[in-house]
Amino acid sequence: MRYQLYYWPKIQGRGEFVRLALEDAGAAYDDVARRPGGLERMMAMMENARDKRPPFAPPFLKAGRLVIAHTAEILYFLGARLRLAPRTEADRLWLHQLQLTLTDFLKEIHDTHHPLGGEFYYEDVKAEARRYAENFRQNRLPKYLGYFERVLAKSAGPFVLGRRASYVDLSLFQVVEGLRYAFPEAMRRAERKLPRIVAVHDRVADRERIRAYLASPRRIAFNEMGIFRRYPELDG
Amino acid sequence: MRYQLYYWPKIQGRGEFVRLALEDAGAAYDDVARRPGGLERMMAMMENARDKRPPFAPPFLKAGRLVIAHTAEILYFLGARLRLAPRTEADRLWLHQLQLTLTDFLKEIHDTHHPLGGEFYYEDVKAEARRYAENFRQNRLPKYLGYFERVLAKSAGPFVLGRRASYVDLSLFQVVEGLRYAFPEAMRRAERKLPRIVAVHDRVADRERIRAYLASPRRIAFNEMGIFRRYPELDG
Repeated sequence: MRYQLYYWPKIQGRGEFVRLALEDAGAAYDDVARRPGGLERMMAMMENARDKRPPFAPPFLKAGRLVIAHTAEILYFLGARLRLAPRTEADRLWLHQLQLTLTDFLKEIHDTHHPLGGEFYYEDVKAEARRYAENFRQNRLPKYLGYFERVLAKSAGPFVLGRRASYVDLSLFQVVEGLRYAFPEAMRRAERKLPRIVAVHDRVADRERIRAYLASPRRIAFNEMGIFRRYPELDG
Repeated sequence: MRYQLYYWPKIQGRGEFVRLALEDAGAAYDDVARRPGGLERMMAMMENARDKRPPFAPPFLKAGRLVIAHTAEILYFLGARLRLAPRTEADRLWLHQLQLTLTDFLKEIHDTHHPLGGEFYYEDVKAEARRYAENFRQNRLPKYLGYFERVLAKSAGPFVLGRRASYVDLSLFQVVEGLRYAFPEAMRRAERKLPRIVAVHDRVADRERIRAYLASPRRIAFNEMGIFRRYPELDG
């Protein structure tokens, strides 16, 4: 099966969580909107009157005739197929639950620079972003990451399900990468209490296909258009 | 199977989407935290060192030995079991995708009164809430509801999957109820362009078990602690 991933072409964003799973599994896929004419094709799929089940927003994945949207749902669908999730219902539901918690976390990370809505320019909400980010650094970031540290402590380790890495571990890697980019100071302090999450990050970074991917031009660099943005004034 | 629903006892909140599905199906369930000692039991399940797979936040559902968190995942799990979703993978994924879009919408609805984070008092973010809510009314509410109106136009109707109601239709009913409570003026204007969504709302409201539930003490009234709050200054 060759997959088609549809996502904004110039950012890692939410699409990156899907890319990491596809890359780690060595799956065949097209990053459609990064090819000539692909962005137009993506927009048409959301707006086109022909599609009976249009997705609301990217990322979405085409797998044969299926079109699947929402990062967590795409990963739920791909998990067992890419051998990045077990096949038992209980384990699949547990991984999905963890990924949905990461989805909530990502929305809050995004809102540190866009607290009043994505329609505003950052320049017009800077004061609000500072207040949002302060609460985020003091309360939300430790709460979410502390939860995942606890989940890892309860698994047999080193990964969330134990010995085998899952797509949730790949996503945890990406969250740590992004937070280190966006909030280097806050993360430096936070990581002292998060040894298990840091260990997951390091193990994922060292996986052969992930290493190759990160060094390739397929990996888009962090920038100030995506979810994770480096605005020093938001790092305290 | 008797289900145990765990959710905050004094608000409809996200738990209400699960309640509506259980009630519509006539399923046997306990609303645990609304019983004596239940709230303590709920908190213990999130914090207790014994549970290997603790949920991050309510709502969560206990079904036998399984504990399932996140509204959309609970409904995905319950859907086919309660005959509120078909059994084919494509249809189940499509419903889940729609429910996850409603999840995103609900977060934005919540943030109209808490734009800087749930840790702030409303009184301390009133000006920010006004700016957030204005953009929400002008851009976000029409975008989300317009999408669902389009989905309904593309289905054979009257429901999102066609002739049979699904848990997504029950959730759409609740979103309309909540928005009418929180933003009566904005909704009065918006509904002129949303005849299909209003029709889903009316059909759901007229289902026998839903009617009985809404008239029962099990239905908590809207109030200013939940997702949908009536602050007239946010309604434009």
